[in-house]
Amino acid sequence: MSTDALTFQRVPIPEGFLDRLVARFGDNFAIGDAICMQHGASETHFETVLPDAVVFARATDDVVDCVKLCAEAQVPLVPFGAGTSIEGNTIPVCGGVSLDLTGMDRIIAVHPEDFDCVVQPGIRREELNVHLRDTGLFFPIDPGANATIGGMASTRASGTNAVRYGTMKDAVLGLTVVTPQGEIIRTSRRARKSAAGYDLTRLYVGSEGTLGIITEITLRLHPIPEAISAAVCGFETLAGAVDTVVQSIQSGVPLARVEILDAMQIAAVNKWSKLDLPELPTLFFEFHGSPAYVAEQIAIVEAIAGENGGGDFAWSNQPEERTRLWRARHEAYYATVNLRPGAIGWATDVCVPISRLAECIAQTREDLDGSSIPATILGHVGDGNFHVVFSIDPAAAEEMAEVEAINARLVERALAMDGTCTGEHGIGIGKQHWLEEELGGSVDVMRRIKQALDPQNLLNPGKIFSL
Amino acid sequence: MSTDALTFQRVPIPEGFLDRLVARFGDNFAIGDAICMQHGASETHFETVLPDAVVFARATDDVVDCVKLCAEAQVPLVPFGAGTSIEGNTIPVCGGVSLDLTGMDRIIAVHPEDFDCVVQPGIRREELNVHLRDTGLFFPIDPGANATIGGMASTRASGTNAVRYGTMKDAVLGLTVVTPQGEIIRTSRRARKSAAGYDLTRLYVGSEGTLGIITEITLRLHPIPEAISAAVCGFETLAGAVDTVVQSIQSGVPLARVEILDAMQIAAVNKWSKLDLPELPTLFFEFHGSPAYVAEQIAIVEAIAGENGGGDFAWSNQPEERTRLWRARHEAYYATVNLRPGAIGWATDVCVPISRLAECIAQTREDLDGSSIPATILGHVGDGNFHVVFSIDPAAAEEMAEVEAINARLVERALAMDGTCTGEHGIGIGKQHWLEEELGGSVDVMRRIKQALDPQNLLNPGKIFSL
Repeated sequence: MSTDALTFQRVPIPEGFLDRLVARFGDNFAIGDAICMQHGASETHFETVLPDAVVFARATDDVVDCVKLCAEAQVPLVPFGAGTSIEGNTIPVCGGVSLDLTGMDRIIAVHPEDFDCVVQPGIRREELNVHLRDTGLFFPIDPGANATIGGMASTRASGTNAVRYGTMKDAVLGLTVVTPQGEIIRTSRRARKSAAGYDLTRLYVGSEGTLGIITEITLRLHPIPEAISAAVCGFETLAGAVDTVVQSIQSGVPLARVEILDAMQIAAVNKWSKLDLPELPTLFFEFHGSPAYVAEQIAIVEAIAGENGGGDFAWSNQPEERTRLWRARHEAYYATVNLRPGAIGWATDVCVPISRLAECIAQTREDLDGSSIPATILGHVGDGNFHVVFSIDPAAAEEMAEVEAINARLVERALAMDGTCTGEHGIGIGKQHWLEEELGGSVDVMRRIKQALDPQNLLNPGKIFSL
Repeated sequence: MSTDALTFQRVPIPEGFLDRLVARFGDNFAIGDAICMQHGASETHFETVLPDAVVFARATDDVVDCVKLCAEAQVPLVPFGAGTSIEGNTIPVCGGVSLDLTGMDRIIAVHPEDFDCVVQPGIRREELNVHLRDTGLFFPIDPGANATIGGMASTRASGTNAVRYGTMKDAVLGLTVVTPQGEIIRTSRRARKSAAGYDLTRLYVGSEGTLGIITEITLRLHPIPEAISAAVCGFETLAGAVDTVVQSIQSGVPLARVEILDAMQIAAVNKWSKLDLPELPTLFFEFHGSPAYVAEQIAIVEAIAGENGGGDFAWSNQPEERTRLWRARHEAYYATVNLRPGAIGWATDVCVPISRLAECIAQTREDLDGSSIPATILGHVGDGNFHVVFSIDPAAAEEMAEVEAINARLVERALAMDGTCTGEHGIGIGKQHWLEEELGGSVDVMRRIKQALDPQNLLNPGKIFSL
């Protein structure tokens, strides 16, 4: 079943509603084509659906009033950040208001002694880290895109550092949320842990804006490591690369980052980012710690790699080299998309138990090799999570159908290995069918929660599951 | 407001209900006094409330049938494990059936390559670790008591290792749950992370059996460290001890355990566990890693401790010595209770931002010193979480009232510091009033979730909040 099978109905906008928004929000209200287009589009292949209006929030009270006006008029409301999500998560499929939170981008407080900070949802992760630099702390979660923290919380984002530092479920200590009824709640105090009642923090993290609008986020921070070392290593086989990671973790090495790029991804990256890596299944590593400890980690991992068909490690110990290397990793998506002129990107992700990762990637590569559409594999080996990116011709309908079929086989393969249909992109509109297949009766529990908290189905309707 | 202000009504048992239980469960059904007493009592000071019957589950189907029989008859059902919880979490305050899950104690699977295992809820953490030893992996969460994994999940337990390895919210990868309607759901696949829909795993973890009965748990495991080193260090001041921990974490030292015991707790431990530690505010440390890395961590922490009024480190590098040290830490509760013959224990915990911990402990110690009731402080410094244990005379009603007043001041103090009323014990019946004060409107969201998932209020009614 493809996403095309999902049908959504635009909710009619009651007379006078837009006037009430203008009266309340003035210059922070927009209905212009360009702005609506920007808020109705997605980073990937999904069709644009325009919102009826865009409201720019500057403060929590703006969010409260917007929610209340929408609730009164029964108009859908979709929170919007950087717009970098992958599964159509912010497309206003039922119309209504797109609530842009990028203006709420303040850092409210940094508490270095407590290893936390409090931010508004619109701040982006790179800007946050620039601000934090002088404190000796950093915010580790890195999904590639320079996403907003609110968006990252909403999709339970993770990325290259998750093997060491966890995902947004681990990074978020607490939230301020505006409920669908327009109440402001705080899901936890600033203590590092709590056993006080249901874990609402984790319920809102990953709920894709369907249960409430996040207006403040308390984030866990980590000390900037004294030494950071990065390396690249090509492997004879994909299995050898994956085994290297498993054995390294078993040996107690706290890999800070460990990314796999298949041979075609390396070819794309070489071309796009002007590198000259051997076109082999390749691991990108990063090690964090004291200089002595980093050296020790490296010695262990080099030995393990050698036993698994790994070549020499190419080191990047200077910040500039390291930045160049990781920029190449982060541009991998664009490197693939641009394998063909005029192509657009189509990205998917799954996550399987690590013991099945090599097999899952190999079978997927074989499937991709049977297609004429260029596609690359890259992933977060330590988590068992990987991505496939396709470079498709937007004018060729048959390519879209072919990619959908390949994606369906990929997800079925991951589910058969007791994996998940999405490790870090979320469900959005792209993975709803598989959510049911993956979690069965749990989806009914989710529906009951949605109906209990948002009985009007006002917030980001049509996402995650149908009601 | 004390817990006495909570009143509960026993739910009448319909005619024939117990006969139906007998017919279904035979020998696994009990109404004997001793068994009912065991299932109606608590580890601490709460009054015993007897269940009408106890059912011993041996398999998930038993849980399903018991839930369905209870639902049909509208009889409350309370899951029960080791009975080691602290806030009256398993007392059947409305009567009904206590569902004993200790017979479901199998390890269903261990996946060393994936660093996880699947267990039934009745297995206890120490038995699990004995079983795991040969795999080179271990399950780190250690709340002190040899609790069941199901109980630990239900209260979101943590303990001495949480500073390094997290709490049960981090340890649980997925759950099988029997819903109040008797459906079996699985909250996630076995992938290490997922962005697929609402995080039901984390919703059930810490829900104290009020939303469903956990029948299987997938746990994250960690490699047994190559080297483990433990040490004890006394400090001139409590603040010096806390600062040592904060500065060590800032220096990137991944403390595996760091416990604080105040001078009176040390006195009690010396007496109970036959140690001869100086009666000072004291830190118990544990370091994990390679031998070289452990040595490096120790050098850093010793230097920081020296600058903060710490004395010499007393080392326990042999497993037997280490076990003796940590046994003493784990017996700290009993050491305090037994400061007076015939006394019973009364335990509470709060958690505050680490920057406020020294101040919170100092003010609490001052408050305790104004009372005639012996009481000690011990806690998980790296988390900002600490316990107060009182040794009270069960025959002296005024002692109970005095402890309740001290506890109320403690919780208010923690809340005023943006802390939580419970870091790891849960709400149970002991902390309900403060949950409202701590989280305000969030508690209404919790109520809505409870009503949506358990509209009959069948599972562990009366816990966490009133409906």
